[in-house]
Amino acid sequence: MDSFGDHELVTNHNISSNTTNLLDPEEFRRQGHMIIDFIADYYKNIENYPVLSQVEPGYLRKRLPKSAPFQPEPIETILNDVQDHIIPGITHWQSPNHFAYFPSSGSVAGFIGEMLATGFNVIGFNWMSSPAATELECIVMDWLGEMLSLPESFLFSGKGGGVLQGTTCEAVLCTLVAARDRVLHKIGVDKIGKLIVYSSDQTHCALKKASQIAGIHTENFRVLRTTKSSSFSMSPDILRQAIRNDIERGLIPMYVMATIGTTSTTAVDPLAPLCRIAKEYGMWVHVDAAYAGSLCICPEFRHFIDGVEDADSFSFNAHKWFFTTLDCCCLWVKKPSSLIKSLSTNPEYLRNKATDSNKVVDYKDWQMALSRRFRALKLWLVLRSYGVERLRELLRFHVELAKTFHKFLEGDKRFEIVVPRNFSTVCFRISPSSVESSTVDDQNKSENNKEKWLVERTNEVNAKLMDAINATGRVWMTHAVVGGIFVLRFAVGTTLTEEPHVVAAWDLIKEHADDILNAYV
Amino acid sequence: MDSFGDHELVTNHNISSNTTNLLDPEEFRRQGHMIIDFIADYYKNIENYPVLSQVEPGYLRKRLPKSAPFQPEPIETILNDVQDHIIPGITHWQSPNHFAYFPSSGSVAGFIGEMLATGFNVIGFNWMSSPAATELECIVMDWLGEMLSLPESFLFSGKGGGVLQGTTCEAVLCTLVAARDRVLHKIGVDKIGKLIVYSSDQTHCALKKASQIAGIHTENFRVLRTTKSSSFSMSPDILRQAIRNDIERGLIPMYVMATIGTTSTTAVDPLAPLCRIAKEYGMWVHVDAAYAGSLCICPEFRHFIDGVEDADSFSFNAHKWFFTTLDCCCLWVKKPSSLIKSLSTNPEYLRNKATDSNKVVDYKDWQMALSRRFRALKLWLVLRSYGVERLRELLRFHVELAKTFHKFLEGDKRFEIVVPRNFSTVCFRISPSSVESSTVDDQNKSENNKEKWLVERTNEVNAKLMDAINATGRVWMTHAVVGGIFVLRFAVGTTLTEEPHVVAAWDLIKEHADDILNAYV
Repeated sequence: MDSFGDHELVTNHNISSNTTNLLDPEEFRRQGHMIIDFIADYYKNIENYPVLSQVEPGYLRKRLPKSAPFQPEPIETILNDVQDHIIPGITHWQSPNHFAYFPSSGSVAGFIGEMLATGFNVIGFNWMSSPAATELECIVMDWLGEMLSLPESFLFSGKGGGVLQGTTCEAVLCTLVAARDRVLHKIGVDKIGKLIVYSSDQTHCALKKASQIAGIHTENFRVLRTTKSSSFSMSPDILRQAIRNDIERGLIPMYVMATIGTTSTTAVDPLAPLCRIAKEYGMWVHVDAAYAGSLCICPEFRHFIDGVEDADSFSFNAHKWFFTTLDCCCLWVKKPSSLIKSLSTNPEYLRNKATDSNKVVDYKDWQMALSRRFRALKLWLVLRSYGVERLRELLRFHVELAKTFHKFLEGDKRFEIVVPRNFSTVCFRISPSSVESSTVDDQNKSENNKEKWLVERTNEVNAKLMDAINATGRVWMTHAVVGGIFVLRFAVGTTLTEEPHVVAAWDLIKEHADDILNAYV
Repeated sequence: MDSFGDHELVTNHNISSNTTNLLDPEEFRRQGHMIIDFIADYYKNIENYPVLSQVEPGYLRKRLPKSAPFQPEPIETILNDVQDHIIPGITHWQSPNHFAYFPSSGSVAGFIGEMLATGFNVIGFNWMSSPAATELECIVMDWLGEMLSLPESFLFSGKGGGVLQGTTCEAVLCTLVAARDRVLHKIGVDKIGKLIVYSSDQTHCALKKASQIAGIHTENFRVLRTTKSSSFSMSPDILRQAIRNDIERGLIPMYVMATIGTTSTTAVDPLAPLCRIAKEYGMWVHVDAAYAGSLCICPEFRHFIDGVEDADSFSFNAHKWFFTTLDCCCLWVKKPSSLIKSLSTNPEYLRNKATDSNKVVDYKDWQMALSRRFRALKLWLVLRSYGVERLRELLRFHVELAKTFHKFLEGDKRFEIVVPRNFSTVCFRISPSSVESSTVDDQNKSENNKEKWLVERTNEVNAKLMDAINATGRVWMTHAVVGGIFVLRFAVGTTLTEEPHVVAAWDLIKEHADDILNAYV
């Protein structure tokens, strides 16, 4: 008996020879074809499901066994359970009637690329562990950088470079840590409590979370005010004033994130002046174009990122509005060495000749994790399967659909557009005047607090409208609150969405607006 | 002309009606079936490719165009390019002759699960965004926790809970930040420079990197010495002494990571005494069982994690040796609230009734990123398709294969086993005595430096052996250096590996050992 207690198993030595290998090619083929038909049928029938899942918390525990099965179960049984128990609990992000948040736009090419990556299942932490994974990523990031007309300094050819992160949160954290260490290297690590990070009240929460993770004091995280009058974009004047105040107090401005297409209202921060100020004070500028970045491959929309040449890093999510499945965040940096200085690890067990030669990129040093999937495949598949021209046409088509929706709103006096549309997202609401005129005298309404009453009532009416629409399961929209205004967001970009879906959504919105406004009379 | 310059496109309004939608179900079906056959054939022919890619740095730039194509390309062309240009640059982690690092063990079920997740392509950041994604994850993590006999306090039923992270690096960073903030909350954020993190010289580099990211001073990262005599496991005495020294210097012990199955030699740190000490000083203990954790679903191996009941968190990678494709790291914590306190964000645009009800888990607050894939599907598919019994049998089978290899080594005097085998990885080398006896007098060899000479020469011989074997493309192994010894690692666990592959690998090793030792004579 050996010391690990597994002596009794020796008799069972050739255990696997009696059963099929878990990666048996023919079993793979059999089940693979089955699942392709399952998913194809799912897309075919997707409009039969409520977009927003209508299940109650805890629904699944009631339906599944308490423990894992002891014996194997056939794929047919499992797929039946997916159909009966999982699909009802899914909110269908691929539905053409999905207009919530931002799109999660899948495509056949994106799916095929993901399958290839899963099939090869390489752990591409460094060049040597799968050269194609690293090299294809470098190439594709240069292709995409060129499509976006990023300055040469962001491309490998210009001593910069691109890397695929999982999500924007990771991209932001990596650049923030690089920026932090660049400063601390000069002033000493014990000064971490003096570093200041700047955002606006519209910046994605990813930056606050990244700051928290990176050890930036909560009170050193600045949230600059934006206003409706400037469409909720970050004000360079307010930034400069904040920086000056901080410097006067002995603090050290370190990082600012500018957003092209904020989450709430797709606001655009003015890159050129923000970069100018940041440069003056030696700060790192990251440009977060998570949603809107993809549209900048169209020459007529490229101006939105004018000024990026003075930023330190730029990212957008190919998994949002670029037909590449989650997760796939494209990050470019001007100085890969700043990432590498903060994020590299060189244990002996990963040492190899290629790394020692300094002739290769080891992407593990450009990201937080060590292991990494072969994500470049899906991006490559998308770029090749559709080509630059068709990708541009598709993005433009979504913008056109948003314009169509915008026109519907303009033609109906009950609604107002809250901020100008920049991309494929329209922010609107039932207007205060419609709410007011549809409401009989309220007992609580006096002349004094009429304005406040109207603001609250309008927000309430619009929240009700959203809930009513989402409860039908026929359309899914989400909201934002900006400047105290509850805003409905209509985000176009889901791959399956065509014009009739926008028209039907509009009809549904009108119908429910009628109901709600009438109920108040 | 509107202000965004896209006026000319209005004429092109119904652009997508002339072409197939990018998620057209029938096109999905056509290409999907094609790719299934492609990957099935890849597995069928996988032994025809060199395991370790033999390409040179920069090989791919020479073969691919400088820019993305303007026009779409057919899938047939792209798949030809995958075959001709990508596959030669792939290191084949799914090859049955892969014995490097740790396995990346795919399976049909894992693949199917990943396809379902990719097909649904939901962004499951909170419960509401896709209830099934969250609920299935909770259920599967409880199932798996039960299979590992984790104490109830790590399961949802015991007020703890499990979450799927991408990789161990992320799991470590999340727990480290939670531990950091738990302490800083008591002593003040300005004390971050006093926090101490403990590792051994065998701990995975993930911890050092996570500490760096979390703002722990480099000089506050302790690397405790291990020795060959204790099989490179962390010494509780050394830990205690280090803690005392730090406290005397006014520093604050905060976090220690214990490893079950280190990367270099699969050493096992003694959990029970380490947890006891950590508890005494109020430190967080994370248990990293990235590779070996899966084996603990077998009752006879469960003792390796005895003592885990006193740890704060535990993780293992289902994508290593549990037939689930990358990425899939299983993390359990006793106090989810400590993760949530550090990692939660609650912007208005994510607000929803389910979250407000406090009846649901919002996994975005348990991880670094906001967006998350529906990873639970693949784990669920693996557990159901194979069942507990078969999974145990497969893991035991891999251990048996490692024992077989171990026996081969024992029967050949030229080799020595460097550390006792714990799991499915064997650490060995050509022994110093074989090197010595096969070497004629060296000009540089004197009696004085003979010992040093022999150490160096032995390491050199073993490095040569590894390179020679890997250059054949027939087997891939990697190395470690422990206690100054260059060790060859033979890690069994790749799904397609069967007994004949181990036998063939052994024959190849012997053959090359002959060549190398003879060359020295």
